[in-house]
Amino acid sequence: MAKKSDARIKERDKRTLGKLTDLADRVAKSALAGREPKFEIPSRTKSNTIWDRRKGILEMGDASSDRELFNLNQAKQFMQTMLHASTIKDLIEAGKTSSLRGVFYKAKHTVAGTRENTFDTQDESDPILEDLEVTMEALREELHIFAENRGSMVGRLTVVDKGDEIDCRRMGSGGYAIPSIVEPDIMQFGKCEAKFVLHVEKGTVWNRFNEDRFWERNNCILTHGAGQPPRGVRRLLQRFNQELKLPIICLLDCDPWGHYIYSVIKQGSISLAFESSRLAIPDARFLGIRAKDYKECSLPDAVKIDLSENDIKRAGEIAAYPWFADNKAWQKEIDHLLRNGFKMEVESLITKDISYVTEEYVPQRLKAKDWLD
Amino acid sequence: MAKKSDARIKERDKRTLGKLTDLADRVAKSALAGREPKFEIPSRTKSNTIWDRRKGILEMGDASSDRELFNLNQAKQFMQTMLHASTIKDLIEAGKTSSLRGVFYKAKHTVAGTRENTFDTQDESDPILEDLEVTMEALREELHIFAENRGSMVGRLTVVDKGDEIDCRRMGSGGYAIPSIVEPDIMQFGKCEAKFVLHVEKGTVWNRFNEDRFWERNNCILTHGAGQPPRGVRRLLQRFNQELKLPIICLLDCDPWGHYIYSVIKQGSISLAFESSRLAIPDARFLGIRAKDYKECSLPDAVKIDLSENDIKRAGEIAAYPWFADNKAWQKEIDHLLRNGFKMEVESLITKDISYVTEEYVPQRLKAKDWLD
Repeated sequence: MAKKSDARIKERDKRTLGKLTDLADRVAKSALAGREPKFEIPSRTKSNTIWDRRKGILEMGDASSDRELFNLNQAKQFMQTMLHASTIKDLIEAGKTSSLRGVFYKAKHTVAGTRENTFDTQDESDPILEDLEVTMEALREELHIFAENRGSMVGRLTVVDKGDEIDCRRMGSGGYAIPSIVEPDIMQFGKCEAKFVLHVEKGTVWNRFNEDRFWERNNCILTHGAGQPPRGVRRLLQRFNQELKLPIICLLDCDPWGHYIYSVIKQGSISLAFESSRLAIPDARFLGIRAKDYKECSLPDAVKIDLSENDIKRAGEIAAYPWFADNKAWQKEIDHLLRNGFKMEVESLITKDISYVTEEYVPQRLKAKDWLD
Repeated sequence: MAKKSDARIKERDKRTLGKLTDLADRVAKSALAGREPKFEIPSRTKSNTIWDRRKGILEMGDASSDRELFNLNQAKQFMQTMLHASTIKDLIEAGKTSSLRGVFYKAKHTVAGTRENTFDTQDESDPILEDLEVTMEALREELHIFAENRGSMVGRLTVVDKGDEIDCRRMGSGGYAIPSIVEPDIMQFGKCEAKFVLHVEKGTVWNRFNEDRFWERNNCILTHGAGQPPRGVRRLLQRFNQELKLPIICLLDCDPWGHYIYSVIKQGSISLAFESSRLAIPDARFLGIRAKDYKECSLPDAVKIDLSENDIKRAGEIAAYPWFADNKAWQKEIDHLLRNGFKMEVESLITKDISYVTEEYVPQRLKAKDWLD
């Protein structure tokens, strides 16, 4: 297993190194030919984000801008981009990965003979790495950079992570911590009896479902992303969807934040639009909590939390997203939330019964295929 | 395994239920005898926190206060305490656990015939649960309430979590997610070749150590707590220390926040002083980062982050904690930090080399037994 995995890593890395060398060669050639060293960077702006209705995802458009060395406004960023490209080359060649903060430290120093720092804060460093991602058309993971680990998983599936076989059916109460990098060369899927994935918002809700062995009784995989899921969780859900053909069913709060999390899982986000094709899951489903549930499930008043001014504003913004604007059911849902005047959290279903959510609510909705697309 | 585990759970739960019934009986007896229903609650205040020099932990003193029904200032809290006690009884009898938020929702309702809510926000609810913990001398875990899951683990150890055998030597890049409740009836330790535990502050640092297989080469267990470690992680570290006799070696940032994390792991915190005997690890060690490292390891200036006003204030406060005030080495360390005028993060060691921290820094310090106690 390990050997096969190593070979695949090498193939991916060779590709990324090739792209890095191309970038460096173009810069060097210009310089040696007496021309101005520069390169093009696709624009990661809202105006260059396109909603692809057919594919159902947000994508980056064709606009780009030059990054030039002989331009007072760009010279520093030019140097920063080259520094990070060099660190990435080191990481790949060493077969190691680093955090965003690590890459920042690696490049941070005072330029010899000056009092100028290459980087002062990490805020300057992270966008340069995103520039490299889009310029090289490489995922951050392919640049050997990892994000925070967040989220965990149990369920009727075996995964192979760096050669270790992990049986997600036997992970106790804690679960398997989903790593930040889940590309196929690092993680492969083994035996899987799951028929779908239930993705919940929070670890506390995940605990309820795991304690009640929901994934065993309902033949599924159970994941959470500790709020807005990090890239690793989103990429893993997409792989479950595309490679294992599993529906991704989301159980999130009935509030604009829950709707936004769903929107990002489904269509992608503006800031990461260039990665939508590897992160977005256009056929992800929203099972609940629904605005109608207060009446339909005869919930007590204890579940109500008043919408704040900001909630109302956010709900309006989300309703205007093109992918929600086109969708009658979602327009109705957001309208109902606003008419209710209150939001509801998944955890509030405990007011009916400790395990109402795992034993009645979710199974009934699944059986009735009662969800929003 | 499962059966034995069930039997042990039952024993623990029987004890907790007994305490709950005692509390309820005392209240009921007073009421039936025409006396005022009340009970005593140990005080969780700073003034009732005692530094036990001999044991090396913070403990709660003997002060307590009455909670009375016939007292306008206390009647609501009296009712809230009874409500939560009743929810806990339900949880234990059902053999289920709940989050703090779940317990809040369970008890939240409008008192019949009035417009008064039992609870308005969770901020009111959490302290009532702590009142119950100290009154009943039961850990939150024994009340079937879980906190956030945070932190993960790999290493040369097998644990049994709710009957599932988890081989922490084969957990890939993700690791085993440490659950919130790690009491012996839920988690047992299997085969262990580890000689110590390396506890690091952040998940990103943990990734570096896991990627370099530090735990395999150095025969240890590797944990992180995503910042200030949650109760589950602290309790697990304590069990490793007490039951498996493993030294707990901490690798934290060289700043007041890192020192505070160490202080809480070692001596406990004021807010949870009543749990110190089950959470604190008086012989935990602080391996680094040390103020002397800038010179001793010839680190570049890039590692320096200026101390803020607040850092300087916090450093002074921490130096005055009785357990640090008595300790010459720690006084020197904090003094050195202040004289340096800058803090340093573990991640900044990447400026020497990607794996400098795992291959040189930590192994050298371990070999030289160069740490603070």
